[in-house]
Amino acid sequence: MMNPFADRARAADSLLCVGLDSDMEQLAKLPLPPEDDPQVAFNRAIVEATADYVCAYKPNLAFYESRGAAGWRALTETMRLIPPEIPVIADAKRGDIGNTARHYAQALFEDLGASAVTVNPLLGHDSVRPFLEYADRVTFLLCHTSNPGAADFQLHGGATPLYRRIAEKAVEWNTNGNVGLVVGATYPDRLAEIRTLVGPRMPILCPGIGAQAGDVDAMRQAGDGDAGALIVNASRSILFAGSDAAFANAARAEAARLAHLLRPASSSMA
Amino acid sequence: MMNPFADRARAADSLLCVGLDSDMEQLAKLPLPPEDDPQVAFNRAIVEATADYVCAYKPNLAFYESRGAAGWRALTETMRLIPPEIPVIADAKRGDIGNTARHYAQALFEDLGASAVTVNPLLGHDSVRPFLEYADRVTFLLCHTSNPGAADFQLHGGATPLYRRIAEKAVEWNTNGNVGLVVGATYPDRLAEIRTLVGPRMPILCPGIGAQAGDVDAMRQAGDGDAGALIVNASRSILFAGSDAAFANAARAEAARLAHLLRPASSSMA
Repeated sequence: MMNPFADRARAADSLLCVGLDSDMEQLAKLPLPPEDDPQVAFNRAIVEATADYVCAYKPNLAFYESRGAAGWRALTETMRLIPPEIPVIADAKRGDIGNTARHYAQALFEDLGASAVTVNPLLGHDSVRPFLEYADRVTFLLCHTSNPGAADFQLHGGATPLYRRIAEKAVEWNTNGNVGLVVGATYPDRLAEIRTLVGPRMPILCPGIGAQAGDVDAMRQAGDGDAGALIVNASRSILFAGSDAAFANAARAEAARLAHLLRPASSSMA
Repeated sequence: MMNPFADRARAADSLLCVGLDSDMEQLAKLPLPPEDDPQVAFNRAIVEATADYVCAYKPNLAFYESRGAAGWRALTETMRLIPPEIPVIADAKRGDIGNTARHYAQALFEDLGASAVTVNPLLGHDSVRPFLEYADRVTFLLCHTSNPGAADFQLHGGATPLYRRIAEKAVEWNTNGNVGLVVGATYPDRLAEIRTLVGPRMPILCPGIGAQAGDVDAMRQAGDGDAGALIVNASRSILFAGSDAAFANAARAEAARLAHLLRPASSSMA
């Protein structure tokens, strides 16, 4: 199984992924250099401050796409700021049919150069296959997200909840060894069930700690696997840990704290 | 119920939506003016040729986003080319949590100025709500798509298939009267079932005729409702009906043929 996160997770001794949800409204409150694009300036400061503690970065494309062409330029520039040994997950949550999915896969893997993407699997195999054909990139399927509405379509009168069906399909579609899953940290029981189903090697991306409250320890125990197989994302709690000129220092401190908290040893020492 | 398609569907006597899937690979084969952006030049020719026969246009964002910043500019420019009386569906298939969904809703409705969007409802209500808050715009939820993989997650051991659950939620979430559904023309029985469930007013967007084979007549009878409540999309079969300098004429002829075929009277006269 190809896992671009394993080496970095070992080198940084970290399960932490920092989500680059660089919200323009929040950025407007910070003292950023006026000659630079705000997202580029902010991301540069955040990446420099947090790189020591992360196994991945995850830009959420919504925050860039909502700016139109300027946002795409900022995202492309951000990719260049990230050290090459740190994999980048393009959090795009795309889900479209074959013809269109191929264009998205090309845009995200080739043009943008992401190591991994998030994909919404609702449309089924032909919407996911074009991503999986990139054998050296990881495609994370949304399986059970961390938001309150996640339950709306998970159970609907059947014996098999939707997240279980998605996990089963992830195993079935994993012929290139490059399928991952997104499972919210807010559902540790389901995370444990999914980990058992997919085995210790499949990468699972866990949002839901940080600004979204989740029990870090329960989540880590439920989701842990081989090196690089559990990636835990925090976004706003790190990015906006501080609200003044020292925002980057505050982000660094929060990233260090979370990376430490996510280490197995730290729980017994706490 | 607010329906931005009703007036135009009546005026043009057409259920036809032309999908602006302006694939750069296909465009490279056409004699387009070199001084213009290829997508803008192509879309201008297509819109001029087909406007008489359509009730809506539907740019699929993948074909623009895959070009990065240049694609966003082409999409913005395309919006200006479309006559104001013809509603535009931004086929974005977004699906993300509240904070992020709000950014997408703003980008698509405010910045781009779309009359309607497509949204992937997998993440549940909080991923859809920010779109629904725009009371004068229609949000089409993917319900049952037309591709082969659509079945992968529709039935999984339960009495209630996923498309039915989504249709039920569409009715429940329709407090602003602005929810629509996407139901593939390739499943006319399910389309009829969904129409019965949601009533005659809810707009249903039907892809799957044209390049994807679907029985036009069965689809129209299964999905028909009030004025503007059935919108039938064709993309490649119109855009690439011709492959030489006369491509726009070929597109016009194909749009006219499909618009006619979709009129109730034409089926008995065929």
